[in-house]
Amino acid sequence: MNPPPSCPLCHGDGGRVLWRDSLCRVVLADEADYPGFLRVILNAHVREMTDLAVAEREALMNVVFACEAALQEVMAPDKVNLASLGNVVPHLHWHVIPRFGDDPHFPNPVWGVRQRDSPRAAQPDLDARLAEAINRLLARAPEKG
Amino acid sequence: MNPPPSCPLCHGDGGRVLWRDSLCRVVLADEADYPGFLRVILNAHVREMTDLAVAEREALMNVVFACEAALQEVMAPDKVNLASLGNVVPHLHWHVIPRFGDDPHFPNPVWGVRQRDSPRAAQPDLDARLAEAINRLLARAPEKG
Repeated sequence: MNPPPSCPLCHGDGGRVLWRDSLCRVVLADEADYPGFLRVILNAHVREMTDLAVAEREALMNVVFACEAALQEVMAPDKVNLASLGNVVPHLHWHVIPRFGDDPHFPNPVWGVRQRDSPRAAQPDLDARLAEAINRLLARAPEKG
Repeated sequence: MNPPPSCPLCHGDGGRVLWRDSLCRVVLADEADYPGFLRVILNAHVREMTDLAVAEREALMNVVFACEAALQEVMAPDKVNLASLGNVVPHLHWHVIPRFGDDPHFPNPVWGVRQRDSPRAAQPDLDARLAEAINRLLARAPEKG
């Protein structure tokens, strides 16, 4: 479909782009409490995962899981949270969020009640390390396990 | 790994089972505000999607997307929300949530600030219709699109 004039993910990248291909892009979200919060954003304006062809779904999830793997490698979070919501911006995008037991909302979702003031200091080279890991992981042919 | 003694998803189904195979099960969550709230729960105690082999990841997501398709068919929600969090129970499970513009938290995530008191009345045959749709969709060989 044509990009709706009001869709921010049709009219901007949605963050600092760390990787992109013809299907989607990976951006670093600007979330002060959550350094390393990544989003995988479909390039086309599509509402739901089941609106995609099966091969596109698998390719998109492959990028989501590469982001999870990159976060594990670079940040060693206690847990990774994955979510595709889109209630406010119904243009497919995945949140890939590194969580730590002492982060501001843990164990709640980041959208839940804040538990403490404990923003995590970002490693100074975090963006570059994540970009390197994501690009390296996605340059590999996907393994069939 | 062995099931940890404290893991509720190792020691119970986690809801009313609508479908299951050797990898995972689909249960109807008992969420009064959200009739049709489904969970896809891995049978084994595994923490992260990237701890699974690629073929298992794809098989699990195929079940998640079948649940989304079943919700679309039976309930025609305004949006479907997908999330794998696991901060409280770190045993892989996916939330597949039908959302409506007038539901109690919309447009917030269901874990966010409640906006209104408007629990949706469940269709009396909702469980049976969802079970029928999920079983039918998963009986098909996965299409390659």
